[in-house]
Amino acid sequence: MPLPQPNLPEPAHPDVDSMLSRKFGKEIANYFSGSPLNRVSFLRPDHAFLSQALRHPSASFLLFNKLEPLVKSGTELVQVKYTDVQPIIGEDPFSKTEEDTIKDYNSATYLPQIVFLGLDERVEGFVYKDHYKGQPYFAVDVTPKASVTEAAEALIKNLEGQGLAFSKGRMHLSLPAQEAAIYAEARHLLDWNARNPYCGACGYPTLSINAGFKRTCPPRDIAPSVSTPDRPPCATRTGISNLSFPRTDPTVIMAVVSADGQRVLLGRQKRWPEYWYSTLAGFLEPAESVEEAVRREVWEESGIHLGRVVIHSTQPWPYPANLMIGAIGQAIPTGETVHLGHDAELEDAKWFTLDEVREALRIGTSGLGEDAGPEYKPGGLRLPPKTAIANQLMSAVVNGFVSGSPNL
Amino acid sequence: MPLPQPNLPEPAHPDVDSMLSRKFGKEIANYFSGSPLNRVSFLRPDHAFLSQALRHPSASFLLFNKLEPLVKSGTELVQVKYTDVQPIIGEDPFSKTEEDTIKDYNSATYLPQIVFLGLDERVEGFVYKDHYKGQPYFAVDVTPKASVTEAAEALIKNLEGQGLAFSKGRMHLSLPAQEAAIYAEARHLLDWNARNPYCGACGYPTLSINAGFKRTCPPRDIAPSVSTPDRPPCATRTGISNLSFPRTDPTVIMAVVSADGQRVLLGRQKRWPEYWYSTLAGFLEPAESVEEAVRREVWEESGIHLGRVVIHSTQPWPYPANLMIGAIGQAIPTGETVHLGHDAELEDAKWFTLDEVREALRIGTSGLGEDAGPEYKPGGLRLPPKTAIANQLMSAVVNGFVSGSPNL
Repeated sequence: MPLPQPNLPEPAHPDVDSMLSRKFGKEIANYFSGSPLNRVSFLRPDHAFLSQALRHPSASFLLFNKLEPLVKSGTELVQVKYTDVQPIIGEDPFSKTEEDTIKDYNSATYLPQIVFLGLDERVEGFVYKDHYKGQPYFAVDVTPKASVTEAAEALIKNLEGQGLAFSKGRMHLSLPAQEAAIYAEARHLLDWNARNPYCGACGYPTLSINAGFKRTCPPRDIAPSVSTPDRPPCATRTGISNLSFPRTDPTVIMAVVSADGQRVLLGRQKRWPEYWYSTLAGFLEPAESVEEAVRREVWEESGIHLGRVVIHSTQPWPYPANLMIGAIGQAIPTGETVHLGHDAELEDAKWFTLDEVREALRIGTSGLGEDAGPEYKPGGLRLPPKTAIANQLMSAVVNGFVSGSPNL
Repeated sequence: MPLPQPNLPEPAHPDVDSMLSRKFGKEIANYFSGSPLNRVSFLRPDHAFLSQALRHPSASFLLFNKLEPLVKSGTELVQVKYTDVQPIIGEDPFSKTEEDTIKDYNSATYLPQIVFLGLDERVEGFVYKDHYKGQPYFAVDVTPKASVTEAAEALIKNLEGQGLAFSKGRMHLSLPAQEAAIYAEARHLLDWNARNPYCGACGYPTLSINAGFKRTCPPRDIAPSVSTPDRPPCATRTGISNLSFPRTDPTVIMAVVSADGQRVLLGRQKRWPEYWYSTLAGFLEPAESVEEAVRREVWEESGIHLGRVVIHSTQPWPYPANLMIGAIGQAIPTGETVHLGHDAELEDAKWFTLDEVREALRIGTSGLGEDAGPEYKPGGLRLPPKTAIANQLMSAVVNGFVSGSPNL
C-alpha cells in the first residue's frame, strides 16, 4: 500500500489579496517549504540569546541519530525537553561567548551538533529583548559517539522503551507539511556540519558556530596531540568566505512541453520501477542562468532543443542540500527528436500526451519503493507523488500553464 | 566618467514564437548569462577528447593571473594559442586517462589549473566523434607559482610587451555580453578550484579532474614527503558527494513594492557612495523556498512584511560563486513600516516613488566606484547599472510588472 500523501504547505499570507496575486495567481508552495518558524538568523551569534532559549521551559528539541529523526507512528516528529538532552549536550553549551568558544578551541573535544532552528511565534513562551518571542526549536545530534556514547545510548534506550524510534529511509515524506519543513531545515544543517569537519582551504579541523549555521577555522587549537597550538594562516579567516557557510546546491527540474503544447517529455533512470517516469533534472552549473541550465540539461539528457523557459516554483530538498528550481520549457519545432547518446544518464525519454499524464497523476502516483494506488493498472504510466515538485510541474502543464490563464 | 554600459545578452532562440513566449513575454537574460559555448559536460572526463581539443589549431585559451583575465584596452578578452601556454601546462596534460591520473596522484607536483569551457559551435574547426564540433575554449591559470614561476613570468612579460594586461578590479563589467558569460564561467571555476585545495571531509589535499569541474580525494598520494602513500578512507569516495563538485550559492535579490503598488523599497550599505541605493539581497538558507528566503531577508533587514513574491529572472554572478535569483515582492498593507533594528546590515532603507526610481534609472546609474552620468544632479538618487539584476528588477517594476500586462 502506498503511504498517505500529506497535504502541501499553505503559501504565506493566503488572506492577502495583493496586486501580484491577482495578476500571477496564488503562490505555489512545495513540500519541505512552509516552515512556521522565524529563524531570527541575526541572533545566532548571540550566546546570551541561545543560552536562554535552550534552557527555557518551552524549548523543544528534535533528535537525530545518524541524520534520522525521532518519530512516532512513522509520521509524526517527536519533541523532547531540555532535561532529556542535557546529559548529552551538557548544562549550557552556550555559557561562553562565541568569541571565547573559538579562542578555547580544542579539536580533541567532541561537541554533539546543536542547531537552532527558530522561534514558533504562534506559541507564547520565551521572550528576548521584548521583540523576539515564541517557542524555541533546536535539533540535536544524539548519535552515540565519542564522549557521549553512553549518555546517547541510555537516552535512545529510554525513548525506544516509550515506543519511539528513529525513522528509517524516506518516511519523512509522510510528515505533515509544517513538520516536514522543520525537519528539512534540521537535516540539511546536521548533514552539512557532519559532512564538513575539515577546512577546504587549509585542511585543519573546523568548529561549528552560529548555532550550527557557520563553521569557522580557529587560529589556535589547544588539543594535547597538536604540537603547535597556533595554526598557519587560513584564507577563510581573512574577509568572508562562502566555505564557512552552509552549502545549498541549485538544481533545475523541468517539465518539457512540445512545440504544439500537446505532449510532455518524461524520462526514466534504469534503477526505477517499471513504467515509472519523471521530469528531467540536473545540477545548475557555475555561471549559468536557470533557463540556460534547463536548456543544457534537457539537450544533454534527451537531445531536445528548448526555446522559452519559465520558472514555476522552488522546493527545498534536504537529501542532502538541494534547492530544486522547477521550470517549464517548450521545445522548438525543429528540436523534438529524442537522442539519448550525449549523456548516458537516462534509460529512456519519450513524449506522452497530456491525457496520459493527466490520468497517471490521478491514479499512478506514489513514493519510490511504494506500490501504486488501488486504481492503477500494470503497464500504465507511474509518476512521483505530490510531495515532489516534478508532480507539481506536470500538474501545472495539464492544468493549462502553457495555454491557459496567466497564472504562474 | 562612467564606463560604457555593455549590451545585455540576447535570450536564446529569440526567433522562436512559442506559446510560452506569447503568454509570458520574452525571456529576460541578465549580464554574465548568454554564453555562446556548448559545454558538452559529459565529455569532460574523456581525456582523449580533451587532449585533442587542447592541441587543435583552433583551440582558444583565456589566461588568468590571480583570477584576473588577460584583456586588451580594458574591455576585450584576449585569446591566446596552445603554443603560448604549452611552456606552462606542458605538452599534453591529458595524455593519461583520468583514472591513471588519479592513480598516479602526487600532491607535491604543482599542476596549473586548466578548465575546459566548451565548444563555440559557430566556428568551424575541431570535430569529435562526428557529433561535437566547434572551437574549443579553455581557461588557464598562469599565476607565477611553484614550478611554473619562470615560464609564467616569461609569458606575462611577453604579453605585456604586446600592450596586453591582466585586468584590475571589476573592469570585466564592461565586456561585451557573450565574452562576459565566458569569463564568468572561467572565473567561477578557477576560483572554486583555488579555494578548495583540501578535502572538507578528511582534510587531505585534493586533485582537479573533469577538466576543472570536479575535485577528487585520491586514495593514494605518492609524494616523497608523505610517510604512507595509502590514505585513510574518505566519505567523498563512497557514492557521490556534493563536496566534489563546484559550489554555487543561491542568493535572493528583490524589488519590494508597496501594497498600493506606487512605491519601491530600497536600501543602502554604509560603504556605498552618497545617495546610492539598491534592492535588498541575501543568501538563501538551507530548506527555504526562494519566496520564503525573500520574505525572511526583507523582514530581517528592513522590518517590512511581504505577501506574494514572484520570481523575475536569474543572473550568474562570479564573485565568487553566486546565482542571483531576482524576485519582486509586495508588502502587506499592515507591514510597511521600516525597522532597521533586527539585522544591522543596512544603514538605511526607505520607500521611493515610481517616478523617483524611473528618473534615477534614466540619469543616475553607474558602476560602484564610477561617477554618475552627465545628467545626474548631486543629491538625486543613484542606482546600479543595467549589468546588475537589481537594475532589471527596478526597471520591471516601473514598467508595469505589478499592474501591467501579464509579461514576466
